[in-house]
Parts: sequence; structure tokens; C-alpha cells
Amino acid sequence: MLDAAPLILVIEDEYPIQGIVEETLAEAGFASDILSSGEEALTIFRRNGKHHRALVTDVNLKGRLSGWEVARAIRSKDPDFPIVYVSGAAADQWASQGVPNSILLEKPFAPAQLVTAISQLLNLGSGQHT
Amino acid sequence: MLDAAPLILVIEDEYPIQGIVEETLAEAGFASDILSSGEEALTIFRRNGKHHRALVTDVNLKGRLSGWEVARAIRSKDPDFPIVYVSGAAADQWASQGVPNSILLEKPFAPAQLVTAISQLLNLGSGQHT
Amino acid sequence: MLDAAPLILVIEDEYPIQGIVEETLAEAGFASDILSSGEEALTIFRRNGKHHRALVTDVNLKGRLSGWEVARAIRSKDPDFPIVYVSGAAADQWASQGVPNSILLEKPFAPAQLVTAISQLLNLGSGQHT
Amino acid sequence: MLDAAPLILVIEDEYPIQGIVEETLAEAGFASDILSSGEEALTIFRRNGKHHRALVTDVNLKGRLSGWEVARAIRSKDPDFPIVYVSGAAADQWASQGVPNSILLEKPFAPAQLVTAISQLLNLGSGQHT
Amino acid sequence: MLDAAPLILVIEDEYPIQGIVEETLAEAGFASDILSSGEEALTIFRRNGKHHRALVTDVNLKGRLSGWEVARAIRSKDPDFPIVYVSGAAADQWASQGVPNSILLEKPFAPAQLVTAISQLLNLGSGQHT
Amino acid sequence: MLDAAPLILVIEDEYPIQGIVEETLAEAGFASDILSSGEEALTIFRRNGKHHRALVTDVNLKGRLSGWEVARAIRSKDPDFPIVYVSGAAADQWASQGVPNSILLEKPFAPAQLVTAISQLLNLGSGQHT
Repeated sequence: MLDAAPLILVIEDEYPIQGIVEETLAEAGFASDILSSGEEALTIFRRNGKHHRALVTDVNLKGRLSGWEVARAIRSKDPDFPIVYVSGAAADQWASQGVPNSILLEKPFAPAQLVTAISQLLNLGSGQHT
Repeated sequence: MLDAAPLILVIEDEYPIQGIVEETLAEAGFASDILSSGEEALTIFRRNGKHHRALVTDVNLKGRLSGWEVARAIRSKDPDFPIVYVSGAAADQWASQGVPNSILLEKPFAPAQLVTAISQLLNLGSGQHT
Repeated sequence: MLDAAPLILVIEDEYPIQGIVEETLAEAGFASDILSSGEEALTIFRRNGKHHRALVTDVNLKGRLSGWEVARAIRSKDPDFPIVYVSGAAADQWASQGVPNSILLEKPFAPAQLVTAISQLLNLGSGQHT
Repeated sequence: MLDAAPLILVIEDEYPIQGIVEETLAEAGFASDILSSGEEALTIFRRNGKHHRALVTDVNLKGRLSGWEVARAIRSKDPDFPIVYVSGAAADQWASQGVPNSILLEKPFAPAQLVTAISQLLNLGSGQHT
Repeated sequence: MLDAAPLILVIEDEYPIQGIVEETLAEAGFASDILSSGEEALTIFRRNGKHHRALVTDVNLKGRLSGWEVARAIRSKDPDFPIVYVSGAAADQWASQGVPNSILLEKPFAPAQLVTAISQLLNLGSGQHT
Repeated sequence: MLDAAPLILVIEDEYPIQGIVEETLAEAGFASDILSSGEEALTIFRRNGKHHRALVTDVNLKGRLSGWEVARAIRSKDPDFPIVYVSGAAADQWASQGVPNSILLEKPFAPAQLVTAISQLLNLGSGQHT
């Protein structure tokens, strides 16, 4: 059943939070590639082809690209790719800047919310559109 | 029950189609403001305040703004505003360019699909998020 | 396929609106029992057993019972019964007074919204929970 | 917008009902290919390639194939194909015999329910998985 | 990401269960305020303003108020407030007594169901209405 | 709240995976009956009556019955029974072979996905059809 852990692409530029996300995902059975900027994440995504199963991205990133832009770039390559945004101040922008069938987690949130969000979208993607 | 017909904002630059849309909406009990460009539609939307109940927009428009951009501009003012995109060639871009909780109608579509799409989103907006 | 028109129970105490609702439902292929008060509607509902397929009720009614109360009484007999509320001023009360899996139509609404709301709930009830 | 009417594949072996379905779909803006058996419908479906946009099938058919079997055969070729079942006695079999993301209409139903069911599934298929 | 644990308001009058709920929520990353009666919970909710993120309430409570009534009182202040009901005998009353967009957990249930239920509703509330 | 752990029926014929599933479910608060073939699982299901709350089944099984067939047999007895399929190679068959309102988990998947899938379907079954 569990030959390999599904790999989640994470964009988060605050180091303490990187550790918490990595640990939360590992405990739930996911592997993670954690990058500090949208540019790095897109480079990894394009190189790895189909290996990543979902994106978790902060909205406000240090580089030139916002989380909204990274998600659009990934969806233009893979229209069904699961997207989870994490946001503090920008939560009200989701309705205009988010992509369809994505989830926004408002900070602060519980680790269980992140795990449930990824699982809901992966379970959706594998079949049930509910 | 029906003191006034709900007013739908429509952006469509082909004249024969304008007529069909207007007639379809009128038969279903909706009124419509039909504009030829995104710029005109945004002007009307901003001036009229809360009077429009939904947007139906072609994706490829003659002006500077695409349907994707008009929808984002409207959602940034009203995060719950119902959006229906109409598209021929651009249907595969919805997953990266559309806003959350919108509907895309691929051309050619039946008038009943347009009426159902608007009704589903309005019924959602008035309460049931299902 | 269409041996008999599905029968909708309607509670509406304004006579001109009764006519519009009846005509809208008839054009869509539904039959309707239109009553002026919640008390009358419950009497009919209890007498007819399983013959009604959905309830459409105004929220503010002239009798002792509100539309919220009639819907709860019907759901306590038939937990899957489709409910559509129609409301002008009371739209913001749906989140606290409505029953689960119901739809609220805010006045003014288009006849097509009423037909779509009933059809969505009937199609749900016959199977697809989406 | 409406260069051609979307084509619906219909399997119905009772002649009076064929006429009602054809007229209902035409009024809603759909074209229809109406066949009397599952075998004929599959032949047409396989020959026409991508031209049909949805299937409406009675469950109990005169030929060797049931509506359940025709739907599975079509979905094995096109996993996203919209399916609407029509059924009288067999309604309780949908949970075990239906395919995912399909709709069952229990007889008797209103023409508006058929139109809404097809529109909901087409609108879903073109993007919004809700 | 996780500056503070989201605070869940819990109404449960059996002490052993209070402990299990508190521990389950804490392991998932939520904080909890656990009260023994609906009256106490409403007092806390009204005093704390926007600090609680969701309600988990048993249906049968020792005080004057049932869980159904507490949920309606909270929703009349905050129409989007996530509600999870917990119930043994009263499960069949949800369809008539529950509020829209709530979840009922039938006893006995697994701790993971409680965590998933809260997370689903919070993730919905932060954006995706699916 | 948690008088007894909800019992999940699991069909999995690879022993190492049986252990992982059992442990994952136990940590989430579920009990499990793990069988090696569809035939055994149906025997247990029929004998136990209403005691199982959900089915988790691999699609490719060693016996005569596939996971698709076991799920149909169970749903013909209990139309609301929650079904989760687990599949490696057969993931694309879900759209034609799966039952309505089921979830397919594509291998490899994280344990959290299994827990979320079961919880989503149980929470649905207890009321909210979303």
C-alpha cells in the first residue's frame, strides 16, 4: 500500500515554520521538498515532472513571485494539481487571486488542518469530485 | 416573490451572441446589462454598486482586459460575486486563470446550461455551500 | 418517463405571487399544491403521505408558524425532504434557522432560480450527494 | 456563443417518451440522438468519437444490455463522460450499480429536472467540481 | 505558520469524555475551552468575541439548552461559525434540528473523525465552499 | 463520546500492508477486521449485520472477486455504506467500476489520506451531504 511517501512541494521562507511543516507532513506519512522562494519551487517542479503530488505555499514570499503566481504557473502545466495556500494578512484575497478547487488556510491554523486539506484535495484528485 | 428581475452583467463582443444571451436570460426571468468590453463592464459595475447579481463573461475580449482579469477585479471588490466564464479555445486555462467557485461553459453550450450555471451560483451565494 | 408531474408543496400568502409560482412550476413540468399558511400546509402534508416531493415556503407567513418552523416539522417526519425557502428581509437568518441541505432564495429572484433549486434538491435526493 | 447545439445521447425504448425527451432537450438548446437499445447506442457512441457530450439512459432496456452496463462501457472509454440514469422501479439500485458522479432521476420526474441534471454535469465537467 | 493554536469551544458534560476530547484536540494542534452546559458556553462565546473558531457540542446537555439551541444562538451572531454536533440517540434529529453546513458525529466515533470534521469546516470557512 | 471504536472492514491480501493499515486505523481510533479475500469479507459482513461502519478494499484481490465486485455486493445490502478503494495500477478504472460516493486512493498514499477518506465518508453518512 505505501511503497513510498507522496511528495509535497512546500514554499515557506521562515525557518522555524519550515521545521514544523516538515514534521507535521512526515508524521502524516508525506515526504516534503521545502523551498524558500517561488522561483526555486518552480525550478524543482519543472525538473521533477510528475513526482510532486501537491503544493503548499505561503502567499507572501520573499522573492519576486507571490504564492498566487506560483500556483497559476503550476496549474498551467498540470490543471488538476492540488493547491493549498497558507496566509495571514492576505486571506481576503483568495476569492480574487486563488485558483479554482484550492484551499486557503488562514494563520494561525492547527497542523491537522494542513494534513486534512492536502488529503481532501488528493482524495478528490484521485476520483471523487465532491 | 419577483418584485424585480435580478440583473446580470454580461460581457460579450459578438453582436449576434449578445442577442441570444439577452433573450435566454430574459426568458429565464433575469435582466441583463450587456457590454462589449471588460473596461465598460468594470465602469458599470463600479458605478452601480450592489445592483448586479452575477457576471457572465467571454474569456477573449476585444479590449485590453481579458475575462480572467475582469473577474479578478470584480472579486477583489466583492469576494462572493458569482462568475460564469464562456470560452471556446481557452477552456483549458480555467484551472490556472479562473477564480475559486466559478463555472466555465465551453462553447458550444445550450442556453439551459447558462441559466443553470447562473442559478446554481446564485443559490449557492444565498446560502447553501454544496 | 413522465407518467405524472412531481407534486410540490408551496406556502405563499400573497395571491399575485401564488399565480407566478404556479405558472413557473407548471412550465417546468411540476404540479403544485399552494397553501396560504403553514398550518394548512402541514395538514395537507400529513394527510397526503408520500405524495409531495419538495417544499417551497416563504419565511414570513401570516399564521402562527413561520417557514422555518414548517420546514422543521416536515423534516422531523421525512429527514430527506427537499426544502426551498423564499425570503426577502429574513435572508440572513438562514444560517441559524434553516435546516441542513436546504436552499434559500433571496427575493427578488428569477423563476429559473426556483426551478433550478427544486431540481438540484430532487436530483440530490434521488442519489447524488454533491 | 452557440455555434452548434451540444449533442446528447439518449437511450429510451418507449416511443411516446422518446418524443417528450427530444422536445424537452430541444427547448433547452440541446440536440439529441435517441436510440432504442444499449447496443445501438454504443455503436453510435464508438463511431462518433468525441461528439456526444452526455448520456441519458433508461435503466431497464429491451436489449441484452442494461443502462448500468452501457454507462460502464462508455465511462471505460471516457472517464469524465456525464451520465444521467432514468428509472422507475430500479431507483434503489443506483448506489450499487451506478457509476461515480452520475445522477439518477426517479420516475416520474419533471422535464426541468432532466435539463438541470444534464446542465449540472456538463458544467461540472467543464471545470467546477462541486 | 502556527503562532497560536486555533481555539475550539466544546460543550460536553461527561467528565471522562471531556478529557478525551481535550487530548484529541491538543494532539491535532487545537486549543479547547470545554464547558459543561450550553449556558456557560454562550456566556464564554459572547465575552470572547471572535476568538473561538468552531463549536463542538453534545446534543443532550444537562442545562436548559440543548446543543441544537446553542448552535442556533451562536449562528445568529456569526452566520459562518463552524458547528459539529456529537450525538448518540438523537442522530436522526439532525435533519430537522441541525443548522445548515454543520456536521453530526454519531457516537461512538473515532477521534480522527472529530479532527477531520473540525478541519473540513474550518477549511471550508476560509474559502473553499465545496 | 467514544464508547467503542468504529469498526472498519478491510480487504488486503499483502501481509506487510495489513499491519500498516491496522496500525494506522488504530492510531486514528478505529478498530479493523482485516480479511485476505473478498469472499471472506462478504461472509463476515453478512454475518455481522450493521456492525461495520465502512469498507476499505484493495481493487486487485487474490480470490475470484475484485474489490469493485465486493463493493457492489455490500452496497446492494446497504446503499449508504462508505467505500474506500485502494489501487495501484487500476486507478483509471474507478470512473467506470466504482460505486457513487466512494473514494479511490491511488498507491502510494500517506496513512493520513486513508484516515481522512474514511472520516469524510462517515461524516457524510451521518448527515452532511457535502
